[in-house]
Amino acid sequence: MFDFKNAKKRVDEAIDPTYMLYSEVFSNLSKNNVYIKPENLQKTGSFKLRGAYNKISKLDEASKSVGIVTASAGNHAQGVAYSANHQGIKAIVCMPETTPMIKVEGTLKYGAEVDLHGQTFDETNTYAQNLAKEKGYTFIPPYDDEDVIEGQGTIALEILEKFKEADYILVPIGGGGLISGIAKAAKEIKPEIKIVGVEPANAASMQAAIKNDGPVTLASADTIADGTAVARVGDITYKICKEYVDEYISVTEEEIMVALTTLMEKHKLVAEPSGALSLAASKKLDCEGKNVVCVISGGNIDMSFISQLIHKGLYEDGRIARFTVELVNAPGKLRDLLDIIAYTKANIISVVHDSLASASRYKNIQVELTLETNGKDHIRKIEDLLTEKGYSVH
Amino acid sequence: MFDFKNAKKRVDEAIDPTYMLYSEVFSNLSKNNVYIKPENLQKTGSFKLRGAYNKISKLDEASKSVGIVTASAGNHAQGVAYSANHQGIKAIVCMPETTPMIKVEGTLKYGAEVDLHGQTFDETNTYAQNLAKEKGYTFIPPYDDEDVIEGQGTIALEILEKFKEADYILVPIGGGGLISGIAKAAKEIKPEIKIVGVEPANAASMQAAIKNDGPVTLASADTIADGTAVARVGDITYKICKEYVDEYISVTEEEIMVALTTLMEKHKLVAEPSGALSLAASKKLDCEGKNVVCVISGGNIDMSFISQLIHKGLYEDGRIARFTVELVNAPGKLRDLLDIIAYTKANIISVVHDSLASASRYKNIQVELTLETNGKDHIRKIEDLLTEKGYSVH
Repeated sequence: MFDFKNAKKRVDEAIDPTYMLYSEVFSNLSKNNVYIKPENLQKTGSFKLRGAYNKISKLDEASKSVGIVTASAGNHAQGVAYSANHQGIKAIVCMPETTPMIKVEGTLKYGAEVDLHGQTFDETNTYAQNLAKEKGYTFIPPYDDEDVIEGQGTIALEILEKFKEADYILVPIGGGGLISGIAKAAKEIKPEIKIVGVEPANAASMQAAIKNDGPVTLASADTIADGTAVARVGDITYKICKEYVDEYISVTEEEIMVALTTLMEKHKLVAEPSGALSLAASKKLDCEGKNVVCVISGGNIDMSFISQLIHKGLYEDGRIARFTVELVNAPGKLRDLLDIIAYTKANIISVVHDSLASASRYKNIQVELTLETNGKDHIRKIEDLLTEKGYSVH
Repeated sequence: MFDFKNAKKRVDEAIDPTYMLYSEVFSNLSKNNVYIKPENLQKTGSFKLRGAYNKISKLDEASKSVGIVTASAGNHAQGVAYSANHQGIKAIVCMPETTPMIKVEGTLKYGAEVDLHGQTFDETNTYAQNLAKEKGYTFIPPYDDEDVIEGQGTIALEILEKFKEADYILVPIGGGGLISGIAKAAKEIKPEIKIVGVEPANAASMQAAIKNDGPVTLASADTIADGTAVARVGDITYKICKEYVDEYISVTEEEIMVALTTLMEKHKLVAEPSGALSLAASKKLDCEGKNVVCVISGGNIDMSFISQLIHKGLYEDGRIARFTVELVNAPGKLRDLLDIIAYTKANIISVVHDSLASASRYKNIQVELTLETNGKDHIRKIEDLLTEKGYSVH
């Protein structure tokens, strides 16, 4: 049985409550009143702390004194490590041998022991479960567990305590733990609230499970939203979603990148790709004028990955454009081209003159222009103007 | 006379209160309890809204019906535009003709009229002041104005209402409006609180003014922290700072970049370079175990600029390193080198083989390796190992 109120009392010892923010920009894009529930600002950088902390708090004293084990290189690892440390419990986090050092250290710093074992995640997972059996440690599952789900549900209580007027809650789905907790807890308080699950189109394992009348393993789950790249949802989470989730929305990789960039630019908030799923989906909701809460599940993203994403997001949004223009190889020709670009008021980011890349290198050269542009209309205008002036543009 | 309580009543109509966040990472770095006051999450993306809104609210009805004018291409422009729009007042924001389109649109979207005039900011400023005289508009100064200062001071009330235990408040200084308001308001409530002003070492105009017994114009104010790149502080702000500010700290460009990257990575918050000054300075405070509030003044930063900054911040922090290694031009030599790199557990970001760049190109080639590293110690170890193995490394 789920008891979210008591879970909240437990979890409140360790977590930061996260304050909802009104989003003007996403409200305009979705024609609803969009609010952000920023679990990326949660301790350890994601909601996972709630479930792990709740699960660990409920262990009996004997189990606590032996210790816990889990397998994860992601947000769950940090949530478990932090929770165990907070309660003075021994924790072992198993990760694949190939895990980048930065992820290992992200968990070590919360005081857990990291055990690198196995080449694939499945190997690591089996190893961790065997370790639990051998040594008597309690295994802490990432999502398919009632106590973990109960912990995640505390988010719904926080939302509805402050904002009873919420009509919709949009939640990213990976294994289904977050949405199961939120859906069950929210409908206990407000049965008419709508719960919308959001998945990457490339890893829509909950929608596949619903269609199949039970969890299935997807052939691939290849998405930049690594936190939700789960090929098979849980058995418990599937049952809860089937009963309590009203609607599903899939979002493309491009939509995720644009949402992520908008969130950074307009809200000054950093999310991981999975975290931005709900915002990406808010534009695709089939309603208007409703109060919509988008849960941002986490913010743990590699800084160098962010630079790349910003770049791609800006491309998708028409804020950066790349043109390859053929030029006759004669003095003054590049200047002529740049005159036209200046006229269009696009800022130049880079100009690459690559005479080797052209097939007929003694006659024509190829110039690759990267421009800061002002949306897709602007790009079209530049393209049209260059074509009109006789340039061959790719 | 300053009346911060009434200013707060006025300003609260328009602003979002910003919630303080405890920072574990900056607390550890500074050996104090560091809290963040995130005015980057403020509407319009900066604190400037507070001063502008307070100033505009206090205008008499006749002045309100004529309209207001200002000169700014930055946060002040957006604060003025938003405030005027909120109160149904006509606003003209003058900007230099060279202002990037994105900044023009950032102000247009709040309903202000943008008047592009002048090649330099001084020309634009003079133009705006003349416009005020000619047409009877009220000019809204960016910082050297008592009503504007009074508005900024409302931040101190918000801080001390929730957190009476604050010992220090660290505040970025540009023209001095923000710190003047905060210092005066905070000391009215808690006279023993310490106010620390933070300036970029490259634009320390308040420290120059204090030394000189009055505002002076710096020969240059060249810093990535563009919001605080002010060559001369105000006359009013100088007098207030002289009386109420306890201490000044200068921070380098590198320190700003590292603080900005840490803020994004650990706190999932985006700041503009000026916004991160206070956090950069928190590490240099001459105290321990105190409650330190760092005001993040704003978050309006260009997305493409962020990618560059992340990159530089990661370099400064030793999280990315670039090595140029000379290799004998023979089969298998690059593989040998990469074997050693793999052994050091550094991730490879890029490998550039540039045979043209080498002086003796038929004998040796230069390989430029960009690696994801784990701090400066790690970089030193890689360097030592390569040297030990006989490579010439730059």
